[in-house]
Amino acid sequence: MSSKNIAPIILVFFLCISGSSAIPGGKKIKYHKPCKELVLYFHDIVYNGKNADNATSAIVGAPEGANLTILAAHYHFGNMVVFDDPITLDNNLHSPPVGRAQGLYFYDSKAEFTAWLAFSFVLNSTDHQGTINFVGADPLMHKTRDISVVGGTGDFFMARGIATIMTDAFEGEVYFRLRVDIKLYECW
Amino acid sequence: MSSKNIAPIILVFFLCISGSSAIPGGKKIKYHKPCKELVLYFHDIVYNGKNADNATSAIVGAPEGANLTILAAHYHFGNMVVFDDPITLDNNLHSPPVGRAQGLYFYDSKAEFTAWLAFSFVLNSTDHQGTINFVGADPLMHKTRDISVVGGTGDFFMARGIATIMTDAFEGEVYFRLRVDIKLYECW
Amino acid sequence: MSSKNIAPIILVFFLCISGSSAIPGGKKIKYHKPCKELVLYFHDIVYNGKNADNATSAIVGAPEGANLTILAAHYHFGNMVVFDDPITLDNNLHSPPVGRAQGLYFYDSKAEFTAWLAFSFVLNSTDHQGTINFVGADPLMHKTRDISVVGGTGDFFMARGIATIMTDAFEGEVYFRLRVDIKLYECW
Repeated sequence: MSSKNIAPIILVFFLCISGSSAIPGGKKIKYHKPCKELVLYFHDIVYNGKNADNATSAIVGAPEGANLTILAAHYHFGNMVVFDDPITLDNNLHSPPVGRAQGLYFYDSKAEFTAWLAFSFVLNSTDHQGTINFVGADPLMHKTRDISVVGGTGDFFMARGIATIMTDAFEGEVYFRLRVDIKLYECW
Repeated sequence: MSSKNIAPIILVFFLCISGSSAIPGGKKIKYHKPCKELVLYFHDIVYNGKNADNATSAIVGAPEGANLTILAAHYHFGNMVVFDDPITLDNNLHSPPVGRAQGLYFYDSKAEFTAWLAFSFVLNSTDHQGTINFVGADPLMHKTRDISVVGGTGDFFMARGIATIMTDAFEGEVYFRLRVDIKLYECW
Repeated sequence: MSSKNIAPIILVFFLCISGSSAIPGGKKIKYHKPCKELVLYFHDIVYNGKNADNATSAIVGAPEGANLTILAAHYHFGNMVVFDDPITLDNNLHSPPVGRAQGLYFYDSKAEFTAWLAFSFVLNSTDHQGTINFVGADPLMHKTRDISVVGGTGDFFMARGIATIMTDAFEGEVYFRLRVDIKLYECW
């Protein structure tokens, strides 16, 4: 095989190996590189019966004995919250929003603070138009938690990846801010 | 390299490039072609306290102050609805169903009509046997909304894609019909 | 083309064809082989007002007229349950847990026992560290039901696949045990 012949084969080989697909047989490739990265913040203000004007989320489900304006005892186990939270580029609640985080979380343990998330980022700015869909477990007390990016639309058409969530701030049981580091490993 | 040698390389190149995988580095390929397309309708009749015989869905969560037979004020913010809706091939509620749309939606904004969806199409007809799983944001007032197909089983084994949703009809707060244009970009 | 030249091309061809990606044009490949398989059990004990110490799940949503300690009439239609269930390697509730199944299920039919699931396996053992995220329809009365693995983190980074669920045992309306056969077809 002459050196003239090797070039296209190497190229093809590279395209197959280093793409985002799995390798047959399930061998892991370590050190994947994201094809797109975003860092965004979102801000959740839970309705507590007194903050209707500012609240961005509301308790809509609760276990027996609990109510819909006070988070339940036992690590809020069974509280389900629907939210429509502003997304910002930095950690300032009053920065101009670039979209909305819309979805659901619920606290799912009686023994520790842990939640489960299913939501979308609905982005609508000069930089990004489209949605990113997330699901996953959120063990709140860990400094970082990884959830799945299961799909996307618009600029994020068919995206998949991992989002690393950090609690950037919280104030009692009313406000919290999450930092979300999105790393997409499948881009179309 | 002789012309005899070029053919298989071109073929391999085509298989890698034009497949549904991401291209390393995240370069976008525009004009993807779906590997499977379906257009289906589903019909939702919300329980309002009087229509138990016909209702296909029920409010199961509501914010403080709301109840489970009347959709809440403020754009129904916080209402969560569980559904088991007939799927039809055309826009007629009384056409023979080809399956059931089963899942959840909830209204997640105090400022506009917008919802979030997580559901499955459970198809059981001569044409299709299997399930398709969807999640995504549904800003109702937009003519079309894109959500993610995050997986499938049976005939839709491992499918991924985009579903474009249109409100095909609605009657007050009791009935609505959605047209769902499913475009799969990953077929196995 | 000499035989020396054929080998790398065949290899590349194999890598492209037999990978986990879709083939352009949507042709199905039958008989896929999983890249990873796991069989796990999880155990759900629903709170019924009397078993607070043992319960691992709680009803947090119910249709009009129902309550949060007794599963609703009409096939539990509209009951939504949040859970944090132990995962074991065998069918014994008292085996050492290898993680927690955390998420949500709800009953979504008035006409038969059927549910919808969205949850994570949060695995934390010497064998596995990471999460697996699932969504899908669960028609309880079928012997086996297939749902989607839509993503994963840690050891299950970016995983996709199918989980086949079987009701391994149940006791009245308080306890059930599910066997979950996880077959991943995309491994990274």
